Amino acid sequence: MRLRVDLLPGREYPDVVILVDVLRATTAAPIVLEKTGLFVTPSLRAARAFGSARSLLVAGERDGLPPEGFNYSASPDDLRRARFERDVVLTTENGPRALAQVVGARHVLLGSFYNARAVTEVALRLATEEISLVCAGMRGEEAIEDIVCAGFLSRRIEKLAPVEVRERVRLSQALLRAYADPLEALAQSASGALLMKLGLFEDLAVASLISHSSAVPRLASTEEHEGHPVYAFEDANRAPAVGAP
Amino acid sequence: MRLRVDLLPGREYPDVVILVDVLRATTAAPIVLEKTGLFVTPSLRAARAFGSARSLLVAGERDGLPPEGFNYSASPDDLRRARFERDVVLTTENGPRALAQVVGARHVLLGSFYNARAVTEVALRLATEEISLVCAGMRGEEAIEDIVCAGFLSRRIEKLAPVEVRERVRLSQALLRAYADPLEALAQSASGALLMKLGLFEDLAVASLISHSSAVPRLASTEEHEGHPVYAFEDANRAPAVGAP
Repeated sequence: MRLRVDLLPGREYPDVVILVDVLRATTAAPIVLEKTGLFVTPSLRAARAFGSARSLLVAGERDGLPPEGFNYSASPDDLRRARFERDVVLTTENGPRALAQVVGARHVLLGSFYNARAVTEVALRLATEEISLVCAGMRGEEAIEDIVCAGFLSRRIEKLAPVEVRERVRLSQALLRAYADPLEALAQSASGALLMKLGLFEDLAVASLISHSSAVPRLASTEEHEGHPVYAFEDANRAPAVGAP
Repeated sequence: MRLRVDLLPGREYPDVVILVDVLRATTAAPIVLEKTGLFVTPSLRAARAFGSARSLLVAGERDGLPPEGFNYSASPDDLRRARFERDVVLTTENGPRALAQVVGARHVLLGSFYNARAVTEVALRLATEEISLVCAGMRGEEAIEDIVCAGFLSRRIEKLAPVEVRERVRLSQALLRAYADPLEALAQSASGALLMKLGLFEDLAVASLISHSSAVPRLASTEEHEGHPVYAFEDANRAPAVGAP
């Protein structure tokens, strides 16, 4: 089994991808999916239209803040306290765009510190040849918090199974070592700095919690809505296991 | 003044670029340039043909070893001990290819641990708006040793002048912190592992020496030879300073 880390999305993925966008899409996703159904889209317009067509709740952010008319922001802290009466469609700036670059993989999972144990266990259960930890980055640039989280997840996977690793796995684990804890890395990142400027320090605190959720968002299907992809997720820890007897 | 780090070459560079390929092109380059003239090309064939047309010594490597008929390898350790009677044309796998992606910059310098003090001082003397530390990487993938060296050079520059930095500068400095010293980072890298397998441990030792050379290779001109670029370098610390009175 090969274990890979990509600092940005950018190649063909044959088997299992864990997409990592710690601030905030892949932290928010398991929080929502614990309580209700989840759709993700890169487009504000598609989120509004799809939400209205299906009577969904709409959650998301642009520049860290919820767009007009949205029911929720993308704040993990807010979403943790919310009680959803309907399914949710989520749109954020980086995670959904990165999703478009990995949909070719056999399985696409969303991972973060928040569901670290669960997502690594599911990845190992599903993978037959390769697990790729793919960092979403921020506006096309590498993001510290995603690489540090990939370091954390890759270290867990290495402990659980014999895997063949390449240099970037070591790079991500070295970056992890450079910080006293995940919160310190989040605070040094550009996304983290933006959230702190907006007073959303609690989001960093929630995003640095480790293995607080056993929900593992797995891409179930993709449909087009108003010219944009809308991705439907299921919880791989509750859905029937692929290949189960 | 902006200070940038790119983990791989990949955008437009308006002002000063320090290209970093620690193992081994940008460590070998100041070593050669201290003693004689230096040309660099990505092509084996162009190196041979250009070397023969100009009666140059030919140095380089493929997979860590000198190609047939070459006078020297790209080993910094060998090149340190060599006495060159003629100018040298150098070809290696990653550095010269990265060079092709940064030639648009106003000034292109080659930097490494080996000429750290000199290259950062020259960069600050030449720059008017931006210094970009561009990591060459290895076969299109990010290389630990180049990022760690960019962290080292960026920290020096930050100490010498007020600069505006972005997230990847912090990332490279954090990666630097993760290692006890440059040699440890070099040993963990894919290029370093290859050189150690070839018994070239001394190359890692030389490449991790700090500020042993005051030579600063600066791109002086580019010409085509047999369909490939050949880059001519001068020592920016000995050439007349640009803009000097």
